[in-house]
Amino acid sequence: MILEVAILDIKDGQNEAFESAFSKAQVYISCQKGYISHELQHCLEQPNRYILLVNWESLEDHTIGFRQSAEYQEWKQLLHYFYDPFPEVWHFTKIKP
Amino acid sequence: MILEVAILDIKDGQNEAFESAFSKAQVYISCQKGYISHELQHCLEQPNRYILLVNWESLEDHTIGFRQSAEYQEWKQLLHYFYDPFPEVWHFTKIKP
Repeated sequence: MILEVAILDIKDGQNEAFESAFSKAQVYISCQKGYISHELQHCLEQPNRYILLVNWESLEDHTIGFRQSAEYQEWKQLLHYFYDPFPEVWHFTKIKP
Repeated sequence: MILEVAILDIKDGQNEAFESAFSKAQVYISCQKGYISHELQHCLEQPNRYILLVNWESLEDHTIGFRQSAEYQEWKQLLHYFYDPFPEVWHFTKIKP
């Protein structure tokens, strides 16, 4: 299992519009092969900041499967406008106990 | 519920020692009032990077309860040596649906 992590800083004054767009966009990620779960959380210290956490079965389910899908174009169109700057995305795996 | 997020970049060549120290240190966080769960995950793109995610009942359970506890001194002593740079920590809350 892979955890996708993106710290999302959005343009000033756009929280409500961004959250509304995200609530529409999330259907385009939830239907992907290898998608397990996701959550969007809002930062207490920086009101323009969110974190997106997505669990995938494999790295490629995100980086190839989702990013090359038709649904990614819809996701982009709904969300990319809000980002300032454009976010870095990292992937993590659990530490073996 | 509050999600504490820290991106941890550690010194070169210290992964094994850091993971070993973390496996000892985690008992000091797990016993705190308001602690719910935690996970440490390792970054695929940057081998020196980890993410620590901790769920707390409230912000103060982390920022006051844990940070002013005797156990925090043990946690610091085990882990702070490895960080380069010293990490920023943010707190997040779930978006209302």
